[in-house]
Amino acid sequence: MTFIDLRDRYGITQLAINTDEQQELSRQTRELGREFVIQVVGTVKERSSKNMKIPTGEIEIILSQLTILNKSALPPFTIEDETDGGEELRMKYRYLDLRRNPVRRNLELRHRMGIEIRNYMNDRGFLDVETPVLIKSTPEGARDFVVPSRVHAGQFYALPQSPQVFKQLLMVAGYDRYFQIVKCFRDEDLRADRQPEFTQIDCEMAFVDRDDVLATFEGLTKHLFKVIRQVEMTEAFPRLSYADAMELYGSDKPDIRFGMTFKVLTELVQGKGFKVFDEAEYIGGICAEGMADYSRKDLDKLTDFVRRPQVGAQGLVYVKYNEDGSFKSSVDKFFDAEQLKVWADSMGAKPGDLLLILAGNKKKTLNALSELRLEMGNRMGLRDKNVFAPLWVVDFPLLEWEEESQRFYAMHHPFTSPVKDDLELLNSDPAKVRADAYDLVINGVELGGGSIRIHNDGLQKRMFEVLGFTDEEAQEQFGFLMNAFKYGAPPHGGIAFGFDRWASLMAGLDSIRDVIAFPKNNAARDVMIDSPSPIHLNQLDELNLKLNIKE
Amino acid sequence: MTFIDLRDRYGITQLAINTDEQQELSRQTRELGREFVIQVVGTVKERSSKNMKIPTGEIEIILSQLTILNKSALPPFTIEDETDGGEELRMKYRYLDLRRNPVRRNLELRHRMGIEIRNYMNDRGFLDVETPVLIKSTPEGARDFVVPSRVHAGQFYALPQSPQVFKQLLMVAGYDRYFQIVKCFRDEDLRADRQPEFTQIDCEMAFVDRDDVLATFEGLTKHLFKVIRQVEMTEAFPRLSYADAMELYGSDKPDIRFGMTFKVLTELVQGKGFKVFDEAEYIGGICAEGMADYSRKDLDKLTDFVRRPQVGAQGLVYVKYNEDGSFKSSVDKFFDAEQLKVWADSMGAKPGDLLLILAGNKKKTLNALSELRLEMGNRMGLRDKNVFAPLWVVDFPLLEWEEESQRFYAMHHPFTSPVKDDLELLNSDPAKVRADAYDLVINGVELGGGSIRIHNDGLQKRMFEVLGFTDEEAQEQFGFLMNAFKYGAPPHGGIAFGFDRWASLMAGLDSIRDVIAFPKNNAARDVMIDSPSPIHLNQLDELNLKLNIKE
Repeated sequence: MTFIDLRDRYGITQLAINTDEQQELSRQTRELGREFVIQVVGTVKERSSKNMKIPTGEIEIILSQLTILNKSALPPFTIEDETDGGEELRMKYRYLDLRRNPVRRNLELRHRMGIEIRNYMNDRGFLDVETPVLIKSTPEGARDFVVPSRVHAGQFYALPQSPQVFKQLLMVAGYDRYFQIVKCFRDEDLRADRQPEFTQIDCEMAFVDRDDVLATFEGLTKHLFKVIRQVEMTEAFPRLSYADAMELYGSDKPDIRFGMTFKVLTELVQGKGFKVFDEAEYIGGICAEGMADYSRKDLDKLTDFVRRPQVGAQGLVYVKYNEDGSFKSSVDKFFDAEQLKVWADSMGAKPGDLLLILAGNKKKTLNALSELRLEMGNRMGLRDKNVFAPLWVVDFPLLEWEEESQRFYAMHHPFTSPVKDDLELLNSDPAKVRADAYDLVINGVELGGGSIRIHNDGLQKRMFEVLGFTDEEAQEQFGFLMNAFKYGAPPHGGIAFGFDRWASLMAGLDSIRDVIAFPKNNAARDVMIDSPSPIHLNQLDELNLKLNIKE
Repeated sequence: MTFIDLRDRYGITQLAINTDEQQELSRQTRELGREFVIQVVGTVKERSSKNMKIPTGEIEIILSQLTILNKSALPPFTIEDETDGGEELRMKYRYLDLRRNPVRRNLELRHRMGIEIRNYMNDRGFLDVETPVLIKSTPEGARDFVVPSRVHAGQFYALPQSPQVFKQLLMVAGYDRYFQIVKCFRDEDLRADRQPEFTQIDCEMAFVDRDDVLATFEGLTKHLFKVIRQVEMTEAFPRLSYADAMELYGSDKPDIRFGMTFKVLTELVQGKGFKVFDEAEYIGGICAEGMADYSRKDLDKLTDFVRRPQVGAQGLVYVKYNEDGSFKSSVDKFFDAEQLKVWADSMGAKPGDLLLILAGNKKKTLNALSELRLEMGNRMGLRDKNVFAPLWVVDFPLLEWEEESQRFYAMHHPFTSPVKDDLELLNSDPAKVRADAYDLVINGVELGGGSIRIHNDGLQKRMFEVLGFTDEEAQEQFGFLMNAFKYGAPPHGGIAFGFDRWASLMAGLDSIRDVIAFPKNNAARDVMIDSPSPIHLNQLDELNLKLNIKE
């Protein structure tokens, strides 16, 4: 017998030919090569040696006819679950890479998510409305991609970073529940796992407050995890203020699959002559349960880790609270066992635990401690990809002060409403104003974010003032929105999810690239079609443009 | 009693206040104006005078509480089904125009279509795969919109005119059924009812021939008409070759809600001394049933109609076949009753019918006769917007010869497969090759079109040669596609529908603008947000561009 593995989108089926009895077919099969496209006729039979690992493993097809529909050259890498092809090669031949099961499964999962999301939203009265892609460039936020107009010389469209303004106008138009799964664009500086085009699940509701929005999209989230991943999220999602998230996790997108929250030690440990502590603005630590037997080597590696530029700590203080109740620390010179016991108690540590402490500038130390916590989470196996821990982070600051330009920037965007109680502060102490904004974080990944919006033209105008817009600038950029608010705008709010990121989280992947059929590389280049690329001079001429390349 | 009409997305509800008993509420209602946004509490009661025309007409709400959530200035036009606002004003305040019932109903219909299409395709195993928006400019077809890259100086992305190449690559990748509802872009010269961005229902299938594709999308079409318009299309859609469509209707998108097909009279009427006929390449006519009593005035208007530049005939010959069997024609000087009887018989006319005849250059006359037929269809009430007559037009020519550039162009696109029987002609007589292409036409509107594609790298290369590409050009533009065909490409084909047009047809509208939430005007301008618009010089500089505006 000769056997052939026939692969299609749905799996692999075994074809069988009796080499002796079917000489013509046998001759034909000898012409076949990997990835040939064939058409066959035959009889389905139960297999003698079954492969229970695949759905079609119990049957085979005894061939009676075979046609070669198309031949194939030898692919540049093996088309198997584990391939020998490097990233660049697989991207260049993406149409071959897409044949591999793991990639296909990712795109199928993304497809199913899309269908589920749309039906869920439709069932709840949300209207899918397409907003324009050719819009207007605004200086706020990230950099826009622009599109020169041929008809209107010297003028440009911009590609949307989000349909924000249009969805708000839909609320003004009385479409009280809107959603769209929509491509968005950002011409950002290149960074790993950034795509110049990405997809957003964009939603907006009128006549709602924060709790209405959170309840609605908590529902969507639970539904998706249930139908796509068979994960039941029965509990209400916990909520954490931005301020608490920073104090407890040093991050506005904490991974709460595990605890190990920060304990502040500043007052407790200062004034004992240890200079590193005494000169620090902030001293904080985490307690790694049961890790007191961590080796010298492991601790050294951890110290190297915290000293990396992206972590940014100067050094690491450890305290081993041994099983026998004794202590061993990197600061034994300055602190005795009694003092270390006080630390351990204040951090809720038990014998067998390891305390890891960082000190320095508060902002930097919180960030370093966050990285250290995640690293320990990884080392201790606390970040299981099949466990999903959702969290709402709420009450973000409305504004961020930028030293360089000496002005406030909107932390989310200029249309975010302040929390009602903080409205007065907008005049007296803008930095303290909380935004009525929220993020959905799962496993430390920011899946989405949104806010209750400003719906009052006076407040919107005031907001632009705070952001340093002149009246003229505000009018030129967003006059149509402030004007729209004059004609009966309802209170409204919404949220937008990163579809790529959500799909990637659900698929258990680290990169969004693997849930995108034709992604661009880290240099924003499509290496398969070789884009971007030069265009003809007459195209440029028609667009009233000239190249102006600096050396 | 005071009554207030409260409007939301779902309709109008009557609020009632007892003016005497509820003085504070009465005072509040006097503050209200048109389009104010309010929140009310009250009790639902059966109305004494019912309005059975609206779903909420049997009830009213007796108010107990009223809060003004936002005021409204007086809108620039009335927000009613029939508005006094002109096109330009309504576009500038589109968020107010969208509040009108007819516009809202159009967008709701479009939403429902989207949901139905996606679920129908999903149920049949089609995968929704997003293809990139930032792709590569190609000189073939309509003009591309381009997007300058900041990172890659002097290079550009292009916005897709369709995801054609990507969906074919998905077939090569083994995703045997693909669909997507996707924005496409064309920088065409401005024309009424053109939008620079439009939405396509884009589909592709592998291992199919033409009949598989037609059967699949005939199914989708029937389903949509049934669920959206409650129209049962029980019959198989008729099919007409391009050649027949041109001979019978003078159009490749005939409206077959009515007959009135063309009859060729050339041989019959020539040689009788009437110069207009004797010098004509083609003479053809239509028979308007029961219209013999058409007045002189109506016939004069019809003559004016056919002389319009967009129709382009020199004049109109009419023959009235009166009820009494007599004839009256505009060519009585040249033809007697006996001769006119022969014409009438050859055209299948009966007493009471009106023959309308045009003569001249064949191509122009076919086109003029087509316009005349449609006009008569309108005048005779044969084009009912609630009747839907679907038609497949098949066997298009593969190539069109362009005199100016002295080369062939692909009538559909360069990836369209020739009909198998015509493959040989590609070398001997390319103009005669038929494409394995098809259009879905309903009521004279081309809803969609597609083809079986070339899946063989040799044939694709040959096609580019016929289109006058050098090897180098073909390689530079489409090398990745021809390369993909080397690695086991299956036979495949597909179709793309104009979603805007389809929605507009279903909504009974004449313009696609009315099914688009935020359309651009005929000058490709969004007058609401005022786009396109100039951008900052530093943006241009970052993009390595300079304006080069000719006076």
